[in-house]
Formats: sequence, C-alpha cells, structure tokens
Amino acid sequence: MTSDAQVPSVFSGKSRPGGRTARTRERVLDAVASLLLEGGYDAVTMDAVAARSGVHRTTVYRRWRDTGGLLADSLDAAREHPWEPPDTGSLLDDLLAINRQIVAALTQEPSITRALVAASFRSPAAAHALRSFWENRYAHAAVAVQRAVRRGEAMKDIDARTVLIASSAPIFYELVLMRSPMPEDIAERYARAGAAVAAGRP
Amino acid sequence: MTSDAQVPSVFSGKSRPGGRTARTRERVLDAVASLLLEGGYDAVTMDAVAARSGVHRTTVYRRWRDTGGLLADSLDAAREHPWEPPDTGSLLDDLLAINRQIVAALTQEPSITRALVAASFRSPAAAHALRSFWENRYAHAAVAVQRAVRRGEAMKDIDARTVLIASSAPIFYELVLMRSPMPEDIAERYARAGAAVAAGRP
Repeated sequence: MTSDAQVPSVFSGKSRPGGRTARTRERVLDAVASLLLEGGYDAVTMDAVAARSGVHRTTVYRRWRDTGGLLADSLDAAREHPWEPPDTGSLLDDLLAINRQIVAALTQEPSITRALVAASFRSPAAAHALRSFWENRYAHAAVAVQRAVRRGEAMKDIDARTVLIASSAPIFYELVLMRSPMPEDIAERYARAGAAVAAGRP
Repeated sequence: MTSDAQVPSVFSGKSRPGGRTARTRERVLDAVASLLLEGGYDAVTMDAVAARSGVHRTTVYRRWRDTGGLLADSLDAAREHPWEPPDTGSLLDDLLAINRQIVAALTQEPSITRALVAASFRSPAAAHALRSFWENRYAHAAVAVQRAVRRGEAMKDIDARTVLIASSAPIFYELVLMRSPMPEDIAERYARAGAAVAAGRP
C-alpha cells in the first residue's frame, strides 16, 4: 500500500545483511521484478529467472518451486522492509500522505504493484501474498486512526481498517480496475472520504 | 456494477427481438459466458466458442475477431440491458441497495463479474469494455445522489460519481483485489461511507 511495494529493498539493489543465501535471494528477486515489469506474469518462468539471475535453475526450483513461490517471496521481501505510517498531526493529512504513496506506486511506469495485482489473478500464491502484504500495512497504519481518536477527530469505537479502506480502496479501484484517467485530486478526494467515515457521520 | 452484470440478458436465455443475427449473437455470447465461468480467460478461444455455440468459426472470426472482441461484446450486451438505480427515499438506503447488488454479483459462484475483471488484465478490449460498462452504470446511478441533494441529504455541489465510488469501490477492493473473508455488513459499512461523503463532512 506504499511506494515500498514499488521498490522493495531486495529490488532496489541495497545490500542486505546475510551471506551467500541472502545474496542469491536478492539476485533471484531482482530478476523476478525485472521480468515482471518487462513482460508481465507470463515472462516470470523459472528458466527465465534462472537465466536472468545467473543462479542455477536447480537452486531456483528447490527454493521457490514455481512462479507463484517467486511472486509470493517478492512480496514477503517487500513486507520485511520497515514502513511507518505518516504522523502529520491530522488524520486527513495522514490519510492524504498514505494515498499519495499509493498513487505514486500505481502510476509509476512500469509499476511493480500493478504487475503484482495482475499476477494475483493468475497465481493463488501471489494473491495470498498480496493480501498478506496489504493487511500488514493496514495493521501498521491503524496507529494513525488511534491518534485521531485521541485528538477527537475520530469516533472512539471506529474500526481503523474501515477508515483506511474507505480512504484507499477508491484509488485502487480507479487506477487498477477502472483504469480511469486520474483526477488530479484523487489522493485528497478519498482521504476526505476516510476522514468523514472516521468522524462517524452521518 | 449490479447483478445485471452477472447475468446479462443475452446470457440468461431470454429471447431478444431480431432475427438470425440476434440469435447467433445470443448463442455465441452464451458460449463465451459458460466457457469463461468454466475455465477463465484461457478457455475463451475462438475455436472453443465456435464449437460450443454451434456457430461456424468463419462467422465468429468475422464478427468478433478475437477473444477481446468476444468479451467486449458480452459487456456491451450487458450494458444494453435496462437498469435503474433503486429509489428508496433515502440516499443511505439507495447506496445500500446498489452495494447489495454488487456483493451478490461478486460472491455468486461462479461469478461472471469476477471472471471479467480477471480477463481485463489480459485483454485491453475487455478492460475498455468493463470501464465503459461501469461508467455507464455510475452515470445512471447519479440520479440517486441528485435526489439526495433535493432532500437536503447531500451538499449542493457534491460530485455524484465521487459519492458512488466511495460507497462501492471498497467492496470491489475487498472482494476482488484483497479477496478478504467478507464482513457480513460490508454493503452497509461502505454505503455509510458514501453517505458521509455526500453530506460533505468533515
């Protein structure tokens, strides 16, 4: 749900702690990302990943089993990357900042996030990993709603996840499912929707 | 955006006016729907559609060209089916009724709507037709928001489409993209979000 989904640490070439096993994973997941961006789900074959990464295909098959396993591990790697929700002092601005991260991830060309969503319709493993990635982000972002409750901007018994979904789901719907031309104020428009839900009216 | 998307008239076996050309289209689109439900996008080949429908493959190729053309025409046929938004006397209840239609279409097993969304990631023609189908439904449903303005339930300058998207997008997101276990009150929860946006707070 943020730009970290776009360029997870293992995709961004940052060095990670760990020895040969970690480096192998980094090379394989970098290959997955570049193949996915170039040719979509159909391009992420085990053999293409082995060739692109320079990792022996026996190793790729043993550790990741199939394309679904590769995509799921890519999302797991993204989830391991630390992410904290914004803390601007107002719920509306926190939701706006999150929405802007989502818009950036979905409108980047090419977009890993859009490619992973498309892949989730082909691979149950990718669908499961995508859901788990998003749920993790929503759980982390709940603190923004809890702070809003303390400031009196949100109802005491509001469900944080409902607020975050009300704010962010329209952006995924417009940009990924409807493929609408993007209204300039889309991030703000639906951050306001989330804030209205939190305030509990009508 | 409604259960009509689920079982468009041409899929439901109702007889339509028109002669042999209309009956050919009905047989072909029935075949598209059943193949899509059975095997997803990959099952909707031109040859399988010709075989299933009993329509000569030369005719299928000439009139629909490719799988994208078949899926797009299926959505066009659904769009031709008359649909009027509910008119319950309250915006919240109108949004709730629309959301219940969407939930029904997405949770039916198997679901033509879910299959068409999946296909939209494979076929630009299907993606275009799906967007055009949804935009048509949102344009039709705008009257529900206009009635709410007259009743004083919505701000005078509210954008009807924003209200309808705020109310319905979270359902598509939860059921199609996140594939969440469905909360029992999902239709009502986000109809309230739409009503809050219409009321223009905060």
